[in-house]
Amino acid sequence: MTGTVPRRDAAGRVVGLSALFAPRGIAVIGASRSPGKLGASLARSLGGFAARGGHLALVNGRDDTMYPSVMDAADAGPVDLAMICVPAAACPPVLADAARAGAGAAVICGGGFAEAGGAGVGLQAAIAEVVADTGIRLLGPNTSGFLAPHAGLTASFVPGVARVRPGRVAVVAASGGVNHALSFLLVEAGHGISLAVGIGNAVDISTPDVLDHLATDPDTRAVALHVESVADGPRLVDAVRRLSSHKPVVALVVGRHDVGAFAASHTGALATSWRATRAALTQAGAVLVDDERELVDAVGALSTTRARATRDAGVGIVTAQAGPGLLVLDDLRGRRARVPELAADTRSTLATLLPPLTYQNNPVDTGRPGPELGEILRAVASDPQVGVIAGYALFEPDAVDLVAAAQSGRVPDVPVVIGLGGTGDDVVAARRALLESGIAVATDPRGVAAAVGALIVDARALSRTTGTRTPQPVPTGVDGPHDEHRAKALLDRLGIDTPPRRACHDRAQAHAALVELGGPVAVKILDAGILHKTEIGGVHLGVTSPAALDEALDRLDAAGATRYLVEAMSPPGVDLVLGARRDPVFGPILLLGLGGTTAEALSDVAIRLAPITPEEAAEMPGELAGHALLDGWRGGPVLDPASLGRIAARLGDLLVANAGLEEIEINPLRLTPDGLVALDAVVLTDTTTDKASDTRPDH
Amino acid sequence: MTGTVPRRDAAGRVVGLSALFAPRGIAVIGASRSPGKLGASLARSLGGFAARGGHLALVNGRDDTMYPSVMDAADAGPVDLAMICVPAAACPPVLADAARAGAGAAVICGGGFAEAGGAGVGLQAAIAEVVADTGIRLLGPNTSGFLAPHAGLTASFVPGVARVRPGRVAVVAASGGVNHALSFLLVEAGHGISLAVGIGNAVDISTPDVLDHLATDPDTRAVALHVESVADGPRLVDAVRRLSSHKPVVALVVGRHDVGAFAASHTGALATSWRATRAALTQAGAVLVDDERELVDAVGALSTTRARATRDAGVGIVTAQAGPGLLVLDDLRGRRARVPELAADTRSTLATLLPPLTYQNNPVDTGRPGPELGEILRAVASDPQVGVIAGYALFEPDAVDLVAAAQSGRVPDVPVVIGLGGTGDDVVAARRALLESGIAVATDPRGVAAAVGALIVDARALSRTTGTRTPQPVPTGVDGPHDEHRAKALLDRLGIDTPPRRACHDRAQAHAALVELGGPVAVKILDAGILHKTEIGGVHLGVTSPAALDEALDRLDAAGATRYLVEAMSPPGVDLVLGARRDPVFGPILLLGLGGTTAEALSDVAIRLAPITPEEAAEMPGELAGHALLDGWRGGPVLDPASLGRIAARLGDLLVANAGLEEIEINPLRLTPDGLVALDAVVLTDTTTDKASDTRPDH
Repeated sequence: MTGTVPRRDAAGRVVGLSALFAPRGIAVIGASRSPGKLGASLARSLGGFAARGGHLALVNGRDDTMYPSVMDAADAGPVDLAMICVPAAACPPVLADAARAGAGAAVICGGGFAEAGGAGVGLQAAIAEVVADTGIRLLGPNTSGFLAPHAGLTASFVPGVARVRPGRVAVVAASGGVNHALSFLLVEAGHGISLAVGIGNAVDISTPDVLDHLATDPDTRAVALHVESVADGPRLVDAVRRLSSHKPVVALVVGRHDVGAFAASHTGALATSWRATRAALTQAGAVLVDDERELVDAVGALSTTRARATRDAGVGIVTAQAGPGLLVLDDLRGRRARVPELAADTRSTLATLLPPLTYQNNPVDTGRPGPELGEILRAVASDPQVGVIAGYALFEPDAVDLVAAAQSGRVPDVPVVIGLGGTGDDVVAARRALLESGIAVATDPRGVAAAVGALIVDARALSRTTGTRTPQPVPTGVDGPHDEHRAKALLDRLGIDTPPRRACHDRAQAHAALVELGGPVAVKILDAGILHKTEIGGVHLGVTSPAALDEALDRLDAAGATRYLVEAMSPPGVDLVLGARRDPVFGPILLLGLGGTTAEALSDVAIRLAPITPEEAAEMPGELAGHALLDGWRGGPVLDPASLGRIAARLGDLLVANAGLEEIEINPLRLTPDGLVALDAVVLTDTTTDKASDTRPDH
Repeated sequence: MTGTVPRRDAAGRVVGLSALFAPRGIAVIGASRSPGKLGASLARSLGGFAARGGHLALVNGRDDTMYPSVMDAADAGPVDLAMICVPAAACPPVLADAARAGAGAAVICGGGFAEAGGAGVGLQAAIAEVVADTGIRLLGPNTSGFLAPHAGLTASFVPGVARVRPGRVAVVAASGGVNHALSFLLVEAGHGISLAVGIGNAVDISTPDVLDHLATDPDTRAVALHVESVADGPRLVDAVRRLSSHKPVVALVVGRHDVGAFAASHTGALATSWRATRAALTQAGAVLVDDERELVDAVGALSTTRARATRDAGVGIVTAQAGPGLLVLDDLRGRRARVPELAADTRSTLATLLPPLTYQNNPVDTGRPGPELGEILRAVASDPQVGVIAGYALFEPDAVDLVAAAQSGRVPDVPVVIGLGGTGDDVVAARRALLESGIAVATDPRGVAAAVGALIVDARALSRTTGTRTPQPVPTGVDGPHDEHRAKALLDRLGIDTPPRRACHDRAQAHAALVELGGPVAVKILDAGILHKTEIGGVHLGVTSPAALDEALDRLDAAGATRYLVEAMSPPGVDLVLGARRDPVFGPILLLGLGGTTAEALSDVAIRLAPITPEEAAEMPGELAGHALLDGWRGGPVLDPASLGRIAARLGDLLVANAGLEEIEINPLRLTPDGLVALDAVVLTDTTTDKASDTRPDH
């Protein structure tokens, strides 16, 4: 007999997910004997559960070989879990029956609910009501179930799930199909599954619930997460953060290219939900991947070994064949992994182990390896710059016992990934033996690089301060319309550099400002109602003479100016755009991009949730594809990431502290030889358009 | 007995590679009985050849169980191929002995030659001399050999090669290690190998030789090509072009991130060898991939099925599970594949086959598929917009016989790729059955997308005009230094728009030009010796008044001007950079990028070999990551690709027709609402710096 009695809270709601994942008994409601029907496939999949002594009751009122009702099934033995295989319209009463019969959890696999629209929306509301009324926990609808192989419990209608071995990787997928696809891929890669769940429509149980369950699941060492959309951003982030601090989480987010219509505002256009979701999950400590193959590589490696918290672990590459080693190196460079030169001591050791012809720095090309491979691996792993080993070899058992060598070459706290090329059962067995001794494996160079990349990113996530931070005091009560002068005054209060400037009500003040600031100056229209000054001829640069000033003011007047901003010109440099705004899913976020339409068209943007520490925000510029422009490109200025991090963190704190502040964007934030200067800024509050009033509208 | 007598040409040089790949007999020189030695591993690998009746002679003067010399081996039977397993220093005489004994080909597996430097360089020259003197064909040195599984011939010291099944994919790899790694991956993916070759140091036989051999190899249906560096660009391009017109070639080029120091000139910096190599191979008809996994997906699919020549084949996605289908769609969008809406007729047919809940446009979500899957596939494949089918399903044999359905759903000339998720022997068997019936398979959504992407790119390559083209007449005798005026005059002769302009020797002419052109004008220093005018204050824009003109001329004088260019200002727009220059490996190439440092920092550039047709060159802008900027971004102008193609083709023709022309670059080439205008141009000739002379220096 498996499982335990489900607990309920004072309100009668089932606590936790053990009724679902570790039931004592299961009723299949709508079971069938017709092959091809869901109810038949499901009953067959659950055979393993029954074989282990679980109570499996098939329920079908029209088949006299089965229980006529779930109540009858519950009389025969405990029914903690109801697997419901009836048409959508029948689900609400069947779910209620199951709850009445004592089931603590249910799974509805079928579709035809909210995702189908029409009557399905009402049916979904009806089952939600049953959940609320009875306290039963529900997985689905519109899911293909879950797999709990350690308990022999494969609650899925997909055949072949019984072949999914128990192991240490958990899968939490938005889609039931992806849940199965990933589980099969993991098994093919030599891994086992602790728990695999397809979330479906998430009427009740959603991804954060399962992540919380996994946090205390002793069988789970690492989690593969598949995300299609996020209903509650902060809840997901919190769950990932809690989990990732002690179990690695690897996430695949779908929808990179389903970006929809361009949004109206600048930062809005850059911040698709896909980007924000990836940024939020990364910040919560997850390792983000680009496809399901890298998901398997990454979570497989992280379920096998994990690097210590390290900001930027160096990779030592050891390869028995130069060609594949070059592929690994090229790929790791694309991931911006550090492949350091080896220390003189390391090279001296290698020189005693390898013939002089081979390349012995990093990568270390062993040539056809011999028994000394273990010592070579140990020498490289012992190098002070090396935090992870990336190895590759073709399977050549007559040259070296690779498994023994890899085991003998291990150094504490330095994870090892070995790509083992070959075909046949002995190669599979060697990969399995490596895995079982705590060495991550891959079948090809890209797999090695993906696994090593994941170990590095995970180590970096672990190295971030996760403690609560004390935000610095920031201005509060930010409210009402902000013209450029007022917006910059706010930046001044945040300690962000702005050029010297004067707000002028008339020409006399403007001329005085020119004298006071000296030339050249920028002359701009000053009006909170105008967001795009340049487009209407409201910006004139490089004004040095009174005559040129008058000419500029004439044009501003023609554009409808009532006030002017006269401002000292800043030196040339590299323009950035830094914004803080409220994401509809994740709340306050920060966005950093390079200025100019090219960066915008390429959506080259770094995103973070706010609040954030300056140290974390300082990592943003390095993420930009065009980051080389900030690093002294063609003799230009060099960005101090810490100063950018301080500014970004302050903007985030400001947004968090001011509920009425919708958005603040510095565009451009110019990198000059003297540091970062905010050349223009837009502040939007929820009273921005209500210029005449000091009262906050009630919305 | 296998193989035939090698043919020789009049000079005694062996013709073709049949002595290498289809020998009657093989001598292993330096064979060994010590396990772990190369010579022992190689002798064991060749056992299959001997078992099929090939003459296999082990040669070792110090082992009296073997032939004392290759001559003795040749006395006992034909020795067409010598596998040489002796230290590098012994190779030159051993190779000469083999040639003397009548061998038509040899393989030297070991290293220690040019790649090792030092004495190895001389040894490599020595074996090259033997090759030249004797006419023997040589593979290597520094390779792990080749596999010809149809002949049972695995001339490699890597164990496990005997498990490489015969099949229809050929592998041509720069590196012996990669050759084996790819062969094993292909076998694991269900494919077989026709021939797999590691090129190594290419003293004699290089990649083009093997590609030419494969063109007439009846066993080879598709070729996987791995490139590390290219010695002779035009020869490689010619070989790929010849081959790809009747057999698909899929290429992986290494070295994306090993770009070396930034080059001095603008287009030089953008044009790394990696990019040029990929561009050249694409133009020659190859399908380029990013990693070895996609190489396997692509070449596996193209060895199974091939689309008709089509410029932009539409993809019909049919998926049994929505989640994996969404991954396929997302990935295909990233590859810029067209996933068209289905025709009304198609949708009507689908509506009779599918329940109303499912999504029936494109993707077509079948829900759990039944026997109607074949009809669904046929309906989608029959849609006039669909040229390739991308399918995905979990393996559910009790719901549908997927293999039968996929076979019954086929439509002539519409290739099908099916991703089949699952684990176990029956899944592997189903994938094999699909492959054998001409349906490409994958194990996961990314594999489906990679295979479909390859089919589309291959179809596009086939659709290009491959006939010889007649270049349009272009100016010849381009020579000597070109200042901006002369460079633009050259553009005028090419029919490329430039702004109205006047070259002025003095202020009076400049003022007259201002009057004549009307304001605003650009005023620039005119001096062929100055390549970066802006940096020295040599460009003044928006000059409208005589006073402003004088001010500008003062500054040009201060910068050392002796002549001025006064030019009408062009309307604002989107700036491009278009250049033609000579690549050291591939010869004349064209480069197109967006203007500005961001595009440059991101190396967002499209490259083509010249000469090229305007139609082919018109595809360049669509390849830029920032191509959206050219398509009416924020109400801006829309590029007519054909006009860009005409200009690019003309520049290419000019470069080809003028041996003394080193480079011509239009920067910026501005996209305006009125079309493309060349705002500045640089022409560099091999006499550019020799201003005072009309004679061409002899270099």
